[in-house]
Amino acid sequence: MFNNIRIVLSHTTHPGNIGAAARAMKTMGLRHLYLINPRHFPDPQADAMAAGADDVLRGAVVCGSIDEALHGVAFTVAMTARLRDISIEVKTPRAAAPLLLQQAAQQQAALLFGTEMSGLTNEEMGKAQVLVNIPANPDFSSLNLAAAVQVMGYELNAAAQNYVPDVPEIRPATHEQMEGLFAHLEKTLLEIGFFTTQNPARMMQRLRRLYARARPEPEEVNILRGILSVTTEYNARLKSRYQEEHPDVRQH
Amino acid sequence: MFNNIRIVLSHTTHPGNIGAAARAMKTMGLRHLYLINPRHFPDPQADAMAAGADDVLRGAVVCGSIDEALHGVAFTVAMTARLRDISIEVKTPRAAAPLLLQQAAQQQAALLFGTEMSGLTNEEMGKAQVLVNIPANPDFSSLNLAAAVQVMGYELNAAAQNYVPDVPEIRPATHEQMEGLFAHLEKTLLEIGFFTTQNPARMMQRLRRLYARARPEPEEVNILRGILSVTTEYNARLKSRYQEEHPDVRQH
Repeated sequence: MFNNIRIVLSHTTHPGNIGAAARAMKTMGLRHLYLINPRHFPDPQADAMAAGADDVLRGAVVCGSIDEALHGVAFTVAMTARLRDISIEVKTPRAAAPLLLQQAAQQQAALLFGTEMSGLTNEEMGKAQVLVNIPANPDFSSLNLAAAVQVMGYELNAAAQNYVPDVPEIRPATHEQMEGLFAHLEKTLLEIGFFTTQNPARMMQRLRRLYARARPEPEEVNILRGILSVTTEYNARLKSRYQEEHPDVRQH
Repeated sequence: MFNNIRIVLSHTTHPGNIGAAARAMKTMGLRHLYLINPRHFPDPQADAMAAGADDVLRGAVVCGSIDEALHGVAFTVAMTARLRDISIEVKTPRAAAPLLLQQAAQQQAALLFGTEMSGLTNEEMGKAQVLVNIPANPDFSSLNLAAAVQVMGYELNAAAQNYVPDVPEIRPATHEQMEGLFAHLEKTLLEIGFFTTQNPARMMQRLRRLYARARPEPEEVNILRGILSVTTEYNARLKSRYQEEHPDVRQH
């Protein structure tokens, strides 16, 4: 049931937490662990804390970047300890688990956890379709990494109890297709001079969130990229025409 | 909201697990920790794993017995990793949490966790009104102690979101009143010779479960104990009459 779900831990500092997370995963029937630039791995402390989940550790995929870890993934849920002022949707574990299960029935899905100290970066969260916050004591909300994995695994199991297969109407684009779109979009906005009065990074975050909500299909990604291509072509035509007409004006 | 709920850890082996449990408690707003004969406490490993929940550790009550830890408690939920063949009810965390919250609104309640290796003894479980099992991978169901505390705390928080105060119709007897009844019952059954063909320990477990389901009020406990008193008095009268009539027969 959880075969299409990968647990992705980004830049984990303490190898013991990787082991404890592997144990939490295995108790809940989760098997696929991806590690983005772990500080120490493999490590005896990870083995010790895995306490019988060493098969999960042995099968772990160590990645050099988040894009590598999310390769082939079409639905990503990112964990956040803070309720940020952002326009991407923040759900409870209970609300997110059935959604993740539904998506994972058809395609690869990921559950993304940040570092022990600072969680996920804004850039990393921008790659998710849904954010999840575990409700906690406002004065002491720092769950241990493995404890957060345990809670999410627990909710996935609870959701699996009530799971009813439902063929989704849309088949959303993969992570790579979306990243291709965002790269194309950013390049285009730069070329047309859109960023002159905007903070490019912040604007790209907002646009990522907008498209995360939209969940485009591959064909729609192609349409959007087609628009971008035409935009720059049109822009290039305008520029060259301008240069023809005003050969003495220096172009920016 | 959780002020009447105590987390009771029985015979914990590793002090790091006590610290990690304290951290899990605090993230979920639980503050009252009771420790039955911990192997090492206080301990630097407990402090290290508490990671900011040292106030919970400092306030921990170390007890010499389960009866001491449950003193004043009227509703106890015990955790079990195994689905035993027993007649006491086994619930999911999701089903148990609202119940525990409801009970804790009126009186002291406890959430009881066993040792890392073997969980709770049958005797300890016999002191609970409800057993809870966290659904897990049947091939690898051993959740870390602190992870189990985290899941239960998480469910208590989820239940608190939907909590509607409800004045219970009954006010059940406390732990001490129930233990008084069971001691009286066992003594009586022994006196009347009921145990000659029965395993006393097993029979007492069954009777405990029966009364756990019944949840008697203090007045009902008094009635039951009244019956027991009369039983032994009647038995004593029978004996003495028999001795009067048969002065030559040795009494057992």
